[in-house]
Amino acid sequence: MASAAPRRLESYVYGAWTAGKGDGLPLLDAGTGETVALIDSKGLDFAEVLHYGRSVAGPKLRAMSFHERAAMLKALGLALMGKKEEFYAESFRTGATRADGWVDIEGGIGTMLTFASKGRRELPNTRILTDGNMEPLSKDNSFSAQHIYAPLQGVAVHINAFNFPIWGMLEKISPTLLAGVPAVVKPASQTAYLTELMVRRIIETGLLPEGALQLISGSVGDLLDHVTGQDVVTFTGSAWTGRKLKAHPAVIANSARFTMEADSLNASILGPDATPGTPEFDLFVKEVMREMTVKAGQKCTAIRRVIAPRDHVDALVKALGDMLGKTALGLPDDETTRMGPLASLHQRTEVRERIQDLLSDAEIVAGNPDNVRVASGDAERGAFLNPILLYADDPFGAFKVHDVEAFGPVSTVLPYDSIEEAVELARLGKGSLVSSVFTDDPKVAEEVVLGVAPFHGRVLVGNRRSAKTSTGHGSPLAGLVHGGPGRAGGGEEMGGMRGVKHYMQRTAVQGTPRLLSAVTGRWIEGADVQHGEHPFRKSLAELKIGDQLMTAKRQVTLDDVEHFAHFTGDTFYAHMDEAAAKANPFFDDRVAHGYLIASFAAGLFVEPNPGPVLANYGVDNMRFLTPVYFGDTVQVRLTCKEINPRENANHGEVHWDCQVTNQKGEIVAQYDVLTMVAKIWPPAQAAAE
Amino acid sequence: MASAAPRRLESYVYGAWTAGKGDGLPLLDAGTGETVALIDSKGLDFAEVLHYGRSVAGPKLRAMSFHERAAMLKALGLALMGKKEEFYAESFRTGATRADGWVDIEGGIGTMLTFASKGRRELPNTRILTDGNMEPLSKDNSFSAQHIYAPLQGVAVHINAFNFPIWGMLEKISPTLLAGVPAVVKPASQTAYLTELMVRRIIETGLLPEGALQLISGSVGDLLDHVTGQDVVTFTGSAWTGRKLKAHPAVIANSARFTMEADSLNASILGPDATPGTPEFDLFVKEVMREMTVKAGQKCTAIRRVIAPRDHVDALVKALGDMLGKTALGLPDDETTRMGPLASLHQRTEVRERIQDLLSDAEIVAGNPDNVRVASGDAERGAFLNPILLYADDPFGAFKVHDVEAFGPVSTVLPYDSIEEAVELARLGKGSLVSSVFTDDPKVAEEVVLGVAPFHGRVLVGNRRSAKTSTGHGSPLAGLVHGGPGRAGGGEEMGGMRGVKHYMQRTAVQGTPRLLSAVTGRWIEGADVQHGEHPFRKSLAELKIGDQLMTAKRQVTLDDVEHFAHFTGDTFYAHMDEAAAKANPFFDDRVAHGYLIASFAAGLFVEPNPGPVLANYGVDNMRFLTPVYFGDTVQVRLTCKEINPRENANHGEVHWDCQVTNQKGEIVAQYDVLTMVAKIWPPAQAAAE
Repeated sequence: MASAAPRRLESYVYGAWTAGKGDGLPLLDAGTGETVALIDSKGLDFAEVLHYGRSVAGPKLRAMSFHERAAMLKALGLALMGKKEEFYAESFRTGATRADGWVDIEGGIGTMLTFASKGRRELPNTRILTDGNMEPLSKDNSFSAQHIYAPLQGVAVHINAFNFPIWGMLEKISPTLLAGVPAVVKPASQTAYLTELMVRRIIETGLLPEGALQLISGSVGDLLDHVTGQDVVTFTGSAWTGRKLKAHPAVIANSARFTMEADSLNASILGPDATPGTPEFDLFVKEVMREMTVKAGQKCTAIRRVIAPRDHVDALVKALGDMLGKTALGLPDDETTRMGPLASLHQRTEVRERIQDLLSDAEIVAGNPDNVRVASGDAERGAFLNPILLYADDPFGAFKVHDVEAFGPVSTVLPYDSIEEAVELARLGKGSLVSSVFTDDPKVAEEVVLGVAPFHGRVLVGNRRSAKTSTGHGSPLAGLVHGGPGRAGGGEEMGGMRGVKHYMQRTAVQGTPRLLSAVTGRWIEGADVQHGEHPFRKSLAELKIGDQLMTAKRQVTLDDVEHFAHFTGDTFYAHMDEAAAKANPFFDDRVAHGYLIASFAAGLFVEPNPGPVLANYGVDNMRFLTPVYFGDTVQVRLTCKEINPRENANHGEVHWDCQVTNQKGEIVAQYDVLTMVAKIWPPAQAAAE
Repeated sequence: MASAAPRRLESYVYGAWTAGKGDGLPLLDAGTGETVALIDSKGLDFAEVLHYGRSVAGPKLRAMSFHERAAMLKALGLALMGKKEEFYAESFRTGATRADGWVDIEGGIGTMLTFASKGRRELPNTRILTDGNMEPLSKDNSFSAQHIYAPLQGVAVHINAFNFPIWGMLEKISPTLLAGVPAVVKPASQTAYLTELMVRRIIETGLLPEGALQLISGSVGDLLDHVTGQDVVTFTGSAWTGRKLKAHPAVIANSARFTMEADSLNASILGPDATPGTPEFDLFVKEVMREMTVKAGQKCTAIRRVIAPRDHVDALVKALGDMLGKTALGLPDDETTRMGPLASLHQRTEVRERIQDLLSDAEIVAGNPDNVRVASGDAERGAFLNPILLYADDPFGAFKVHDVEAFGPVSTVLPYDSIEEAVELARLGKGSLVSSVFTDDPKVAEEVVLGVAPFHGRVLVGNRRSAKTSTGHGSPLAGLVHGGPGRAGGGEEMGGMRGVKHYMQRTAVQGTPRLLSAVTGRWIEGADVQHGEHPFRKSLAELKIGDQLMTAKRQVTLDDVEHFAHFTGDTFYAHMDEAAAKANPFFDDRVAHGYLIASFAAGLFVEPNPGPVLANYGVDNMRFLTPVYFGDTVQVRLTCKEINPRENANHGEVHWDCQVTNQKGEIVAQYDVLTMVAKIWPPAQAAAE
């Protein structure tokens, strides 16, 4: 690692890269102690940072649809992936090995790409979301309600931890930007040079609207004094700092949304069935080993408490001790290194102090915090620390073990005598990000998972079947919620599109359907309709919400039902056997098949000539509400409900409200018909454009 | 109103009605100034209150299913409705007229009944909820994830406001109990005698498990020092107190969930189209009038800011002034009274002081705060105050108007010159519970609603069409979210089943499908299956999750498609016209109808003999994934996915995973078949039991 003049980190604020006015705090290479960069944010106008984001970028982001924002994230993620080697080179200086860096860099960019693809697949191509069904509030459809989600009109301030300088930023800004909200990122100083490098590359792409991402390199100064009820503040880091920020007068006074991820004494439980010699025992040993050594144990999700049947503690400690003893500690860019240094000498001192705390309730059974053995690098100038395994024989009396997070390669083994005890021990962590149990017994899985779930944001069950495919105890996934109650901070992030909603306001909108429909852009029962040309003859260029077809009527006869039954083979007794149908609590007589009604309905509403409707790709929420008896007459009312044009395609999804009624006006069946419709018709025109 | 010896209020804690050890603070009748009751909670063991709820009631509530808890709420609501006159009599003493009391008493009990009926209709009959779809995390189905909601294992502490002593309690404990979490209610002292009376009636019914509801009459003492990360604290009241509680060290340190509803300067906007003479103008006048006078304006949702086109301000002020001047102020139990007193003389002093604050930016245009005119009662001993209307000519300079909540019959008219200004004025409230706009123009509705939605929990659009059915600006509804961002506290309550989830923890559970299925009680792809007897021959007593039928195969021919097309009338070109089908981007040739595939699938899986499957009541999430061409062979795999026995019925809902594949093993169609299945079969057996 060549020595170089330290970089002066800058902040990217109100449209420009801006240096602080102070001397700059030196940031040291974790492995060598060399100065990597100088950081400070003195003299920045933090109120203006917030104002700039809100006023310059907010309106631009909100003018884009979810699919446009998703496409932006996809383009950005792909551009960043193309530059990954530059990030790896800088990442070594944080103490991260190549494997550690993969989690941070490719894990981070992969998270952005997952949000991009889920955003396109799972959200409509609109600017606001609807939440739940329309709620009728009157019998005559003159007054209804619809919940919507609209983007907050503030900014999201993300105050991140030192351990994942890239993933920590990208997993937060991805849902933020997808929601339509600008972000301000403040990375922990220790590793901010890597975050700053990535923000430079992001800004250079020109893919984000100006102001959508700002970076503060150094302290946030008085920034929190200026947050409003439209802003979101997220914090990942120490509980002490987190609590201070959460109770900040402006955060409290303005009810700024605050989400926190702090200390977490994550537990992993070895099931009573997972005795030595079983695949689950071996998987458990490997998982604990991995969680202790990846990122030198500097992961919020690492296993801090290892809960095992008392009878198997000796075998477990021996197996873990053997593996941990063989873990090659060394410089991050040395390919033989299995575990790199901690992020800084300060962190090493901190971890050693926490080990001292733990020793009041536990004893060391593997490793020695004061005797560092390295395979490469300088054991004193680099922040090296070999893994330390502790054991607490009286786990219910071991208060420190359930209370002190040593943020390094440190775990404590705790024995249990019954599953109830194992669950109770996990809960003593008072809320964690993640817990896991290794078992192949469904009863154990059920008891442990349901017992610990209320105390955790994520619970993993490990067994032989998922050995090869499991993503592991310590890996948060973009599609799953990340965060935990209680001590873990009470936050929730990611979880796929759930995480996007954390940056939006949920509002119940009430009114007459016509006006509600104008607000949501979707047709609802009671809103205006237009009759005219068959709506299946209209391309997306012509089709309007509320375009409606009232079909001809068709009588359903005994012959129809008999014929359909024998043709399809569906001779279910309620259609065929008068006595059995009459004995059935739902029917007064033989009834027509629901599938026959849906088929006849399609026969009534389709347009046979080639046209812009390309395919019926599905049906949602089909309910058969009133039985159709022989001689009844059905009619269909088909209404264009939702139009969802696709980006980069010549078609889009159209949802049709389909209501089938009988001769008495009763609703026989109600469902949504899902179709693909061409943007322009005939397609020759499209090709010409 | 007869004079009587004041009652000594008691707390219902750790299983007994318990009197405080202090002298008791006198609570005065709002209209007469007589002492109604004495209140204090001195000497209670508040740590034990929390511990008792968690340990005694928590396990009992969690052992019940959602439907059992819903049935409990229904029985309780009906029992309370039967005693309503007793509550009305006591309610008069709070200053509430009969009409005001209706909102509190029948509105509160109605909210409980709505939660009961929504709980039964919208939640499954299980103990945990699943959230979203199963997420496959591996290609071979060996590792997946499912989000679940499990009840928190703490208690919910509800600290309520004085204005709705019954509704305030019931709207909060209904979702709490439905979630499976015990409640501790602390009503505001001023009107706690009414809450205490209702809690007495609730406990007497014996319908709640012991400990599920505790009441603290008086101060909560050091209770908050003992909250944990599994507890929830809700607060409704003044912003000053709310902020103090939210920043309480134990709430912050343990990340106890905290939700708050505080000051809210709700705005109502008169649309530019709603000129004098239109129905919307008249509706607006009536709505403002109602919101100012119901509960003497002591509603968190009342209209405090009246935003109107500058041109129509004079007409509006005149119309409002006339109506307000005619509002008969008097004793609550006097039938000619239109508006009762404020809750206390203290409140009147408080409101008069706030009016003084407003006068720095606004002038009084109707009413006189210092000259009380009553139709009945004593203007000095009772807390009477006539409605006061103010006007601020420079609304963007009127900082107090957007900042000061006079919690009484007080509103300020603000003029605007454009819709953008109207929206901006509403936003100056910095977050409110509710906003409304009166317009018959869809464009105005869209612009105002989308402009103000991020600042509000609820937005109402009023117009002529919903004049008779609208529930009004000021009425929170059990099915809609209630709460607002920013100044309004940042909380969210109710919203139907959304509100239940506020008392549950969302957890991502990962593992191999077999173990995940054991945890959730639902079959998912990759979980164990059992083959044997046709599952349609099994009643709920015999049917098991994972029971699976693999059907015979059936070839789909050109003749089938031609026949089906002409029989049903569905001659859509993609089925009938080779050239048109080939030109279609989704198909290579003429394809079979999706409805034909679904019908053939039913023909393959149904059991024709009378049996426990009573009806197919619907289909969910039907997707046609691969086109079926002539000559393809289809086969169905039907798997019992979810069993939902109904309380008080002889049947339950069974959801079947239905997967149709072709001869290449490709999935042709995937959907859920929804059936009703008898609990016991044959039914004779059921009758005999």
